[in-house]
Amino acid sequence: MRDIYTHQKSAAEFARAMKVIPSGVYGHLGPAEGCFIPVEAFPLFGDRASGSYIWDVDGNRYIDYMCAYGPNVLGYNDPDVDEAAAKQREKGDCMTSPSTVMIDFAELLVDTVASADWAFFAKNGNDVTTLAVMAARAYTHRKKIIFFDGYYHGVAPWTQKIDYAGIIEEDVMHNIHLPWNDEFALEEAFEKYKGEIAAVISQPYMHGNFRDNILPEKGFWQKVRKLCTENDTVLIVDDVRAGFRLDIAGSDHYFGFEADLICFCKALANGYNVSALCGKEFLKNTISSLSYTGSYWLSAVPFAAGIACIEKMKRLNSPQILLDRGFKLKNELIRAACDFGFDLRVSGVPSLFYLRLADDPSLMLHQEWIAECVKRGIFFTNHHNHFINASLSDDDIKETVDVAREAFSVIKDRHPDLSSRKGLTDAERK
Amino acid sequence: MRDIYTHQKSAAEFARAMKVIPSGVYGHLGPAEGCFIPVEAFPLFGDRASGSYIWDVDGNRYIDYMCAYGPNVLGYNDPDVDEAAAKQREKGDCMTSPSTVMIDFAELLVDTVASADWAFFAKNGNDVTTLAVMAARAYTHRKKIIFFDGYYHGVAPWTQKIDYAGIIEEDVMHNIHLPWNDEFALEEAFEKYKGEIAAVISQPYMHGNFRDNILPEKGFWQKVRKLCTENDTVLIVDDVRAGFRLDIAGSDHYFGFEADLICFCKALANGYNVSALCGKEFLKNTISSLSYTGSYWLSAVPFAAGIACIEKMKRLNSPQILLDRGFKLKNELIRAACDFGFDLRVSGVPSLFYLRLADDPSLMLHQEWIAECVKRGIFFTNHHNHFINASLSDDDIKETVDVAREAFSVIKDRHPDLSSRKGLTDAERK
Repeated sequence: MRDIYTHQKSAAEFARAMKVIPSGVYGHLGPAEGCFIPVEAFPLFGDRASGSYIWDVDGNRYIDYMCAYGPNVLGYNDPDVDEAAAKQREKGDCMTSPSTVMIDFAELLVDTVASADWAFFAKNGNDVTTLAVMAARAYTHRKKIIFFDGYYHGVAPWTQKIDYAGIIEEDVMHNIHLPWNDEFALEEAFEKYKGEIAAVISQPYMHGNFRDNILPEKGFWQKVRKLCTENDTVLIVDDVRAGFRLDIAGSDHYFGFEADLICFCKALANGYNVSALCGKEFLKNTISSLSYTGSYWLSAVPFAAGIACIEKMKRLNSPQILLDRGFKLKNELIRAACDFGFDLRVSGVPSLFYLRLADDPSLMLHQEWIAECVKRGIFFTNHHNHFINASLSDDDIKETVDVAREAFSVIKDRHPDLSSRKGLTDAERK
Repeated sequence: MRDIYTHQKSAAEFARAMKVIPSGVYGHLGPAEGCFIPVEAFPLFGDRASGSYIWDVDGNRYIDYMCAYGPNVLGYNDPDVDEAAAKQREKGDCMTSPSTVMIDFAELLVDTVASADWAFFAKNGNDVTTLAVMAARAYTHRKKIIFFDGYYHGVAPWTQKIDYAGIIEEDVMHNIHLPWNDEFALEEAFEKYKGEIAAVISQPYMHGNFRDNILPEKGFWQKVRKLCTENDTVLIVDDVRAGFRLDIAGSDHYFGFEADLICFCKALANGYNVSALCGKEFLKNTISSLSYTGSYWLSAVPFAAGIACIEKMKRLNSPQILLDRGFKLKNELIRAACDFGFDLRVSGVPSLFYLRLADDPSLMLHQEWIAECVKRGIFFTNHHNHFINASLSDDDIKETVDVAREAFSVIKDRHPDLSSRKGLTDAERK
């Protein structure tokens, strides 16, 4: 049996953080968002990272399947990306006039992303989803935006919900929420609000938290594209989370359609801080007409990192590597669960897999299993999709599956009533 | 006479940029915002930066008074800040769990900024002004926000204006615009909208573009503070632009009052990409209740840079250095103008001085003079305040004034009718 990790230093640091930072660690990296249950199982503060590993402040090493919630796509501290960034830093980063690496980066994106005729850079995914919605409203002179249930498009007021703190009804009164994969509901909305819909905004597939992720049904995206085109509505793909993990040419390309606007962030520069909106020629002048800028948006170092990152992703064909490794891991985890009599559901695209142990609808068993994995050095979380990075090795996958088996064994012993079912049939395993 | 700079390569790169980037160079760094008139006088692309200098892609060197529009506060590529950042980068930057440097940075801000009981980090100034307004609405359960004319609080829809592209009336319908320095208008608004005003948001003094900057009148801030307290309204100071250039303890401290929430960005980490909202204890739980996060917000490298930057600013007492150098430059520029018969108005705090040649109300003469300075290696702009950095030397100031004199001489020869007036009186010079 492996050593069980503990987090004394992490807990002490968290107590220190609580004094001077709201929530101690806020947002998706903190315990309050609900993915860290039980919180004692998780390290709240990290010390260092390299390749596919992170080390916490207590000295524990983890194989990291969160990848900083996406940015780590090539492996932490990738030497090629870091070298390009360091070289640019010697010349300058945030300067009074932008560096021409900005143009090089835009040209590379236009060459790489199928639906990109131009690129606009900012810092957050939220900056570019907001820009996309503003552009759609400016172009169409309409107000309404269609969202699909399970969406996450950042934290700006327009994308939140009326019952969230700090949001007023005027922020969200033109938002229409529709079920994912429902062509008829979409058709109905376009009929009901004829000439009023500025944009449809959607992730390339439903990868929301706290639920199995759902791929688009055959023909769904083509129907969305057709309805948008017929109604002069701008089709915005939010590829912040999935971008470059399905297809180097964009997740719209992966699913066989073209967005009008596509938002990138996380995997764009292997963790260097930059986001991008790319789009079609017909919206370029509209983007120019908006008042939209930020202090650090034209900083040169993240552009240099982004160029090195995209060039390396293309050289490696990294989306295929991530899909293959994710597929292998998925199958071996399902087999391990099955061997211990558990029903592990793995949903979403394998390079962004979502996990759920279906044997207990309360998800308590799932949380226990995840905790036993984390305490043995595999950084999964409970209710968020995971991320594969290109430095993840076969040995890492083997160690992950070994730990998963040990964790299944522990919870099987703890809950003999829940683990007594038979293994999955082959059909269920697919 | 000095060599006149030309920008052939810059122009060629701009043509390349226009193909793949909306506006070529967008926002405050681009020509479209109106500060670069005539555009031929300005370099649109930079190559490198060091200390108080920038070099454009044509190889021209400038003494830079824009400081990347604020972030460069210690000098470009400050060795202490860069060393701290590089050391942290070896360990990790954007990781699955945040580094404890986040806590160290928050503790340092709480120790340094008078009105800070806690700190919350993000990427853009816009992220933290938006967070501040959301917090005020959540805390007060009210909608209305008071702005002062000449404001700039970022680019989120709530802070723009109804006639801007992409903005809908619901974005801005609860915004109240009042004249700066007008106690009575403020009192009237609080009376008219009794119990409805969530927040007053303001820069520490009026440093808007295209107009002389205006300091607060004696007692104005104390009146604002009093009215906010009496009406349970949250007082938000947007110190994104002026922060750490007036007072290391915050610009509210400089003007003798305390904000409830204070927004920092530009000078926080000498160009490393980070922003911060600091605030009073009574709002800490409200901040925790909001749904607010971003992919890169807990990246460790900018925190390490921010710590080194603030520690060095404190060690140097840099706000005093910036004020002193700005004051010296201001006086010598006014004297130079006077010697050539021009009326140069220098407004705002000297570390963020705003320039206007008052001899020609159309501002054409001003634009010509600025252009003659830029073409000789002094990077001023026409209609935006300027920024002093701590590496600016006495020799730099001397060179700046020499160039300014040469530029005055050129425009005096060109416009003998405008420059025939007498020098300023001592009273006018103040």
